[in-house]
Amino acid sequence: MTSRRDFLSASGAVLMGAAMVSRTQAASLPEAVTQMNPATMPPLVPPNGRPYNPVVTLNGWSLPWRMKNGWKEFHLVAEPVVREISPGMKANLWGYNGQSPGPTIEVVEGDKVRIFVTNKLPEHTSVHWHGQILPNGMDGVSGLTQPAIQPGKTYVYEFVARHPGTFMYHPHADEMAQMAMGMMGFWVTHPKNPGFMPVDRDFVFLLNAYDVEPGSYTPKINTMLDFNLWTWNSRAFPGIDPLVVRKGDRVRIRAGNLTMTNHPLHLHGHNFEVTGTDGGWVPKSARWPEVTTDIAVGQMRAIEFIADAPGDWAFHCHKSHHTMNAMGHNVPTMIGVDQKGIAEKITQLVPDYMVMGDKGASMGGMEMPIPDNTLPMMTGQGQFGPIEMGGMFTVVKVREGLARNDYKDPGWYKQPPGTQAYEWTGEMPEAPSAPVKHDAKSVAPTGAEQPVLNIKRGGVHEH
Amino acid sequence: MTSRRDFLSASGAVLMGAAMVSRTQAASLPEAVTQMNPATMPPLVPPNGRPYNPVVTLNGWSLPWRMKNGWKEFHLVAEPVVREISPGMKANLWGYNGQSPGPTIEVVEGDKVRIFVTNKLPEHTSVHWHGQILPNGMDGVSGLTQPAIQPGKTYVYEFVARHPGTFMYHPHADEMAQMAMGMMGFWVTHPKNPGFMPVDRDFVFLLNAYDVEPGSYTPKINTMLDFNLWTWNSRAFPGIDPLVVRKGDRVRIRAGNLTMTNHPLHLHGHNFEVTGTDGGWVPKSARWPEVTTDIAVGQMRAIEFIADAPGDWAFHCHKSHHTMNAMGHNVPTMIGVDQKGIAEKITQLVPDYMVMGDKGASMGGMEMPIPDNTLPMMTGQGQFGPIEMGGMFTVVKVREGLARNDYKDPGWYKQPPGTQAYEWTGEMPEAPSAPVKHDAKSVAPTGAEQPVLNIKRGGVHEH
Amino acid sequence: MTSRRDFLSASGAVLMGAAMVSRTQAASLPEAVTQMNPATMPPLVPPNGRPYNPVVTLNGWSLPWRMKNGWKEFHLVAEPVVREISPGMKANLWGYNGQSPGPTIEVVEGDKVRIFVTNKLPEHTSVHWHGQILPNGMDGVSGLTQPAIQPGKTYVYEFVARHPGTFMYHPHADEMAQMAMGMMGFWVTHPKNPGFMPVDRDFVFLLNAYDVEPGSYTPKINTMLDFNLWTWNSRAFPGIDPLVVRKGDRVRIRAGNLTMTNHPLHLHGHNFEVTGTDGGWVPKSARWPEVTTDIAVGQMRAIEFIADAPGDWAFHCHKSHHTMNAMGHNVPTMIGVDQKGIAEKITQLVPDYMVMGDKGASMGGMEMPIPDNTLPMMTGQGQFGPIEMGGMFTVVKVREGLARNDYKDPGWYKQPPGTQAYEWTGEMPEAPSAPVKHDAKSVAPTGAEQPVLNIKRGGVHEH
Repeated sequence: MTSRRDFLSASGAVLMGAAMVSRTQAASLPEAVTQMNPATMPPLVPPNGRPYNPVVTLNGWSLPWRMKNGWKEFHLVAEPVVREISPGMKANLWGYNGQSPGPTIEVVEGDKVRIFVTNKLPEHTSVHWHGQILPNGMDGVSGLTQPAIQPGKTYVYEFVARHPGTFMYHPHADEMAQMAMGMMGFWVTHPKNPGFMPVDRDFVFLLNAYDVEPGSYTPKINTMLDFNLWTWNSRAFPGIDPLVVRKGDRVRIRAGNLTMTNHPLHLHGHNFEVTGTDGGWVPKSARWPEVTTDIAVGQMRAIEFIADAPGDWAFHCHKSHHTMNAMGHNVPTMIGVDQKGIAEKITQLVPDYMVMGDKGASMGGMEMPIPDNTLPMMTGQGQFGPIEMGGMFTVVKVREGLARNDYKDPGWYKQPPGTQAYEWTGEMPEAPSAPVKHDAKSVAPTGAEQPVLNIKRGGVHEH
Repeated sequence: MTSRRDFLSASGAVLMGAAMVSRTQAASLPEAVTQMNPATMPPLVPPNGRPYNPVVTLNGWSLPWRMKNGWKEFHLVAEPVVREISPGMKANLWGYNGQSPGPTIEVVEGDKVRIFVTNKLPEHTSVHWHGQILPNGMDGVSGLTQPAIQPGKTYVYEFVARHPGTFMYHPHADEMAQMAMGMMGFWVTHPKNPGFMPVDRDFVFLLNAYDVEPGSYTPKINTMLDFNLWTWNSRAFPGIDPLVVRKGDRVRIRAGNLTMTNHPLHLHGHNFEVTGTDGGWVPKSARWPEVTTDIAVGQMRAIEFIADAPGDWAFHCHKSHHTMNAMGHNVPTMIGVDQKGIAEKITQLVPDYMVMGDKGASMGGMEMPIPDNTLPMMTGQGQFGPIEMGGMFTVVKVREGLARNDYKDPGWYKQPPGTQAYEWTGEMPEAPSAPVKHDAKSVAPTGAEQPVLNIKRGGVHEH
Repeated sequence: MTSRRDFLSASGAVLMGAAMVSRTQAASLPEAVTQMNPATMPPLVPPNGRPYNPVVTLNGWSLPWRMKNGWKEFHLVAEPVVREISPGMKANLWGYNGQSPGPTIEVVEGDKVRIFVTNKLPEHTSVHWHGQILPNGMDGVSGLTQPAIQPGKTYVYEFVARHPGTFMYHPHADEMAQMAMGMMGFWVTHPKNPGFMPVDRDFVFLLNAYDVEPGSYTPKINTMLDFNLWTWNSRAFPGIDPLVVRKGDRVRIRAGNLTMTNHPLHLHGHNFEVTGTDGGWVPKSARWPEVTTDIAVGQMRAIEFIADAPGDWAFHCHKSHHTMNAMGHNVPTMIGVDQKGIAEKITQLVPDYMVMGDKGASMGGMEMPIPDNTLPMMTGQGQFGPIEMGGMFTVVKVREGLARNDYKDPGWYKQPPGTQAYEWTGEMPEAPSAPVKHDAKSVAPTGAEQPVLNIKRGGVHEH
């Protein structure tokens, strides 16, 4: 257990107004703590209020508060930010307190919560507390439940955190534009009873997506489907930190989706169950065993598993172009095409894009010019060569003997002898004999006659 | 309880052939009742047959029937219709009995049902009774289970409504085109036992989508993904009526999806459970608590909740561009761009489109020319200003003390004192101090060195 | 029960190295059995090893193995293939052992499994065993858990099949490109206890999608959303075989999704339950009754039902453009437009595409030129005329009195007298009277005044 002081010094966070607690006044705003580092910060051990087991926000942080007359007070500042999407690329986003997504808010069931929201954006905004059961006037739908917060103004939201669970916050004002610019954050209400569904490690992140033209810095805000940066907490692989867990830990991962499409999160090496949603906790009788859970837009899912298998386990969205970065989506297939002399033509059509290989799309060994401030489409170096991923991909690292609060990257997993796929070096296979034409009927024809395939396999292999 | 006569007079419906019951003959068709009003009609209190608790079809109506020798006889007419999508825009659609969607059909478990389907379209059609357990020859798949219904012809479908539940009907002939034109309708089979899963209010609607070029009237029928009108029962906000419920009511909302993508329906202020599908009723042991349920294409979901929180609660698809109307999807981001002198150029590129603000996309105070017969992208006026929504959005209005059958719009909710977000007018916050560069490492780096961000915050704010 | 010899002769398969078992050597590779026929092969009755109830792979086959010192040895060859998508169209894909998808691998819970993977592709690859619980080094993520398999090389994977269930395999190397080219296959681990969740018929297939320009042969590999061939096991209707089942059978259908979007599988005439995922088996308490199950990307679903209703039941993805083939997605709506003299202009814009009708999109009676190697958008002839489908559509044929292992197409279902929709030939309906203008208000207006529609119905009908 670390103190709040430890949190500040250990985290490496850039905290404005570190002396905020002492300076607070009856009528004053809590200072707005700001975070400038896009790396995963250590859990925020609660310095006061009811105790809880804090979460770890992937490439993010939790917002400190002040206690005041029995209220837990937070201060969110909506503002333009620069977010590093991955080393080598930054984006001009809108967010809260220096980052997009904003900080995670952690409270305890029954807490009286007061949130000050200051609008430093060039247009009005509001904050909707997605999933919370609260008075209608605190719901944050501008026009419907409150006036919008105009630029320069600060609004106050007050409600009791009635249910333990997994929530998020985002604007309900010029919503499509503001979410396309990155305005969102996570919210966890911990149970009053610490024995309620306890876990050893509890990770949280939001699924988001941007459409940033390669070489530029600001997302397009009207994109409906064709996003080119698929991110977790506004980070793309290899910029997403690993999830480090101790072998035997019960692990919870909570994710919320604020993109425009479903994301099927797939975990390697373990089965898991969905144990919670933004509506509450799933009864045991209702749970399904899964290796891939589909998180719809506006949904949150808490998954849980026992990390019983040591190793480096891929964890990613299973839509394969969501594990790619921005490059190349408009490039035609070159498989089977001799590209001699046509690279020049393609470059004229799609300036600065790289040519895809005539043997596939892999670019492990290729060096191509790409625009400034643009991530390679697939990248990431593992201990065994290029991982060839991007976007919504990271690694769950399960290791024996970690300390309880140790989240440091342990490096690559050493595969024990005899447990890794290996190259076969024995006798070579016989040359395949020529295919035999057959005339037997299949058992279940479609009714129409099935033409006999007479494939020139040599020809196929020549591609 | 109102009589059928009350239904007719209270509903304001344009009913052709009001004397239909008396004129029916042994060999005659039931008359085809037609509805011309796009507003929500009151529940159709059953004038005969077994009793049931009728549903309310959002911006729609239920089809009267005649009883004949123990059969419940309905008459659907497939025909071109003009549907008001929202005040200010109409579309040339195909539907049934004067509207798209067609009328809701309500029967009781065990009813012998006979449906006459007259084809007044310019091409053949058929009707598939989605989810019903029925004889194969009544399944309505043209070519496979029956010949298509040619223009001018009437076909007869007969089956027993075996299971209580939530169903729909739509063509299974030239299907992509006919559904893209709006041909679909709702079907509810009520339980024989009125004590089976009773609710106080029971709303139904279909999710549908159209691709109507701004300024035109007829949907494109080959669109696969890029629809620009996201509707409930072919209505877009602010054209969708509110769902009015009494505080304490047990409320069921049943929705079916006949678009080309999933729609995550999100309800504010309440947790709910999915209690039924088009395949039956979900056992209690299998239910999940939710605030957002993802309805896949071709699926129906019944959700239920206790309306225990008074207020005006947003209820919408959580894909934010599905709560927008047609305008603007092709407009580039102007955030951070001085538009002086370029409005003219954009208008040349995208005639009649409105320029998005350099401070966001919000257009609350802007007045821009838009094409004829086109809805603003985001609109709707609440008691506290512009709601800035469109498409698949409406409001669940929970009020105390309503009469049991009162569905009239009660106006805006009066937020009780002390329950609404308010502007903070106290001491202004200190000017933020300059960010401090830090050199401490994060606890969970990706392995690659994390570059230290040195953000010129002033520069960010200048956008 | 048939012997392995029967399997070989009855299946009509082109098997290279039919004498493979006798020629195997201690240090040798198992021969790579190759399949050239795109029709559904009969179940592979296990010739040795533990007994199990084999699955039927729709338009596919299961891979024979050899037993060696207690290991079940398979040989997969990754290679370019030519796949017949449907009679009349072939595609240059990448797959395994002569087909895309590759063969289904069937093992029994507890089996020690060794898979040799030979890479005959022009670039490196790997195989990830999706859903398996196995040592980290056998997980097949190139770069992360093993080096990639270079062209010409063979790698060996070894693990125990720990859990009975439904799995798949696919590359985790240049993944987006290799899956876009068709590299994937099914895996079933049967339970050790044959009494565990037994079914009478057990079908398996993968959902996949391609983007093949009409008239060409090779998929584009960078497509994110706009695929134009939606297939099951790389086959499109009418190229997908029917699922033939005996009335009263308990039927399981297992499907996995490796496209870029969800597919809601809809079955006519029966309710079903999802009983399993790639993460395990769904407890009875957690199951939902369904007629449409949404399979997310990277998910597998096993559905089960009692085939108690004889007939020809449509079974398809409910996204209506996924039951269409490649043609026509760019063609504008012609409904209501007189096309005289403009066909020529459209053809200039979209060469070789067919004009859609001014009365809908149906082309039952139209004969239009289409490009070579291109399937009609909607096609398929049933006993009652054109079925007008394509893509992800087939028919579940339920018949009485079939033999236990009889999967032969029984032809079309004979609808018993009195059970089929029929044309009404009685008295014609009265001419509809003119619509009456009404002025009653609806009960639930939006607040804004509802304008009264005054539709010129004649005008509507003139379209």
